[in-house]
Parts: sequence; structure tokens; C-alpha cells
Amino acid sequence: RHESYYGNTKPAKLNEEKVTRVRFYLHDTLSGQNPTAVRIAHANLTGGSASPVGFGSLFVIDDPLTVGPEKHSKEIGNGQGMYVSGCKDLSKFTIVMYADLAFTAGKFNGSSISIFSRNPVAEEVGEREIAIVGGRGKFRMARGFVKVKTNKIDMKTGDAVLRYDATVYHY
Amino acid sequence: RHESYYGNTKPAKLNEEKVTRVRFYLHDTLSGQNPTAVRIAHANLTGGSASPVGFGSLFVIDDPLTVGPEKHSKEIGNGQGMYVSGCKDLSKFTIVMYADLAFTAGKFNGSSISIFSRNPVAEEVGEREIAIVGGRGKFRMARGFVKVKTNKIDMKTGDAVLRYDATVYHY
Repeated sequence: RHESYYGNTKPAKLNEEKVTRVRFYLHDTLSGQNPTAVRIAHANLTGGSASPVGFGSLFVIDDPLTVGPEKHSKEIGNGQGMYVSGCKDLSKFTIVMYADLAFTAGKFNGSSISIFSRNPVAEEVGEREIAIVGGRGKFRMARGFVKVKTNKIDMKTGDAVLRYDATVYHY
Repeated sequence: RHESYYGNTKPAKLNEEKVTRVRFYLHDTLSGQNPTAVRIAHANLTGGSASPVGFGSLFVIDDPLTVGPEKHSKEIGNGQGMYVSGCKDLSKFTIVMYADLAFTAGKFNGSSISIFSRNPVAEEVGEREIAIVGGRGKFRMARGFVKVKTNKIDMKTGDAVLRYDATVYHY
């Protein structure tokens, strides 16, 4: 039969999609001895002296996810991946996120959602939205959206606590 | 009529989704004269001397895909893109992958799948899972998941051969 790399293509027969709402807080800490967001690259023109989050600053993150907004609230996961400062006009500070939010407790322990889109941080008015483009485990083939609201932010250091309110469509 | 960027929105009328199983081996070689994975950025604090794959190390890849695990097994594609070392705790070594796995032989020659999620390398027990979030050609609008199992790994250099067993839903 196929000693090659593909099997026969068959009808998908997927079940009905379900939806689950997931709410947690993401702690993004750039300052101090144990930062969870670290800059790994930046543009030569606007970066460096200009601003640590200038256009083109690329950060890696391993941000804890907790149940509540407090620093020592119960940890239920972590957000790993990258975000890049994507707007030349810093008054419209925007990051583009490439992160995998994985849960380490409860029903969705071992599952994760992949988020990839811009996150218009400066749009303080309402809630911001980020796109869910995939997932793992119970959130396999997930899609949906996250409504993000800033719970707390330190303008000097950039440290922030964000409320993530995700609507996840999955199987 | 429309001098703008959009046309009229119409019903999608998509066909029934199909599913295809695709299995191959990905060769990720960091060492030697001809590496297929090269580090392009890293964090200042933990990078550099600490460990070549420390938190924040960002690699570009152009990894060959073969039918079997042997080094000189028939090449049927390549995986291009990036992965970043995403876990501060190196004992739970995890990479977050952003890669396009393209096929260059057989039925799916010219098609590719986009993978984007964490890949918990250290989770040796069962199989690890990576999210498929899109695709090109015959795998246009693909979604699904890849089960990954380490076939061979050199802990000193990081060189590894991984078995990728992908379930691809597509149209």
C-alpha cells in the first residue's frame, strides 16, 4: 500500500462544534530579577535607546495564567511564545501576539489555545480582541476570540496584568 | 462600482471536509557544517553563555522531511519557519513552533500545512501534540493536529529526528 508519507483521504465526519468560555488573568512582567517577558531582538533604527518597546521590539514570554488578578492568585496555566511591537506610532501602541496559552489545572489541564493576531494595547476604551487560530488536547482545532481588558499596568516598566475572556469553539 | 478593497459577501458553500493522515520524519540538525536549525536571536540575561537553547532562543529552520527515520531516507518535503525556547524552567524544555511543512513529492507535492503551538519536547512519556492552523494547495484551510514522537535525540548538540503523525482536515 502506501509505504509513502500519506494515507487515503476520507470524509471528515467531524462532530458538532461546542463552545466553552474560559476566563483568567495573564501576568506580563518585564521588570525585576525574574521577568516573564524578555526582549530578544529589536530594530537598530528605532530600538535601543529610543524605547524598550519601540517598533520592532520582539519579546519572548512565559507568562503565568491565574484565576484572579492578584499576583499570588492560583496559577492555572502559562502563556508561552512571542509578541512584537508592531506599530510605528507609539501613541497607538500595538503588539502582534504569537502565543500558546496552556492550562495546567482542572478540566483543561494539558490543553491549550493558540492566539495569533494584533492586540491593540493602546485601545483602552472597550475591550480589545485577539484571534484564536488553533488549539491542543481538548481544545484541538479550536477557533474563536479573546476579549482582553487591562487590569493593571505600570507605565514605567510595562509590567501588566491582563484579564483574558476567551470564547473557544472546539470539538 | 467598488473602488474599495472588498467585494460583496456571499454564502460560503464549502464542500464537505475531508481528512488525510500524513506521516513523515523531521530532521532538526543544530550541529556541524550544514545545520538546518540556526539560532537568530536570544535574550541577554539567560541567553549567550547560559545555554544555546535557553529561554528566548529563537531558531530559524529549514528541516528536511523524509519517509523514514534514517538520515538518507527519501526526502518528501521540508519544514521552514521558526521555533523559540519558551519555558523559563529548562527541565520542562518546551519550544513554541511557527512552521510551514511543505511536501515536494507524491500526491501532496506543492501543498503544505502551517503548524503553530507549543511542542512540549520534555514531555517524553506519550506523544506530544502540535496544532495545525492552516495550509496551502490541497491542504488549503487545513486544521488538525500532529502527534510527535522523538525518534532520536543527541542531548549534547540538540540534533533530533522526530516522527510527525499528522491528521489533516481539509477541503
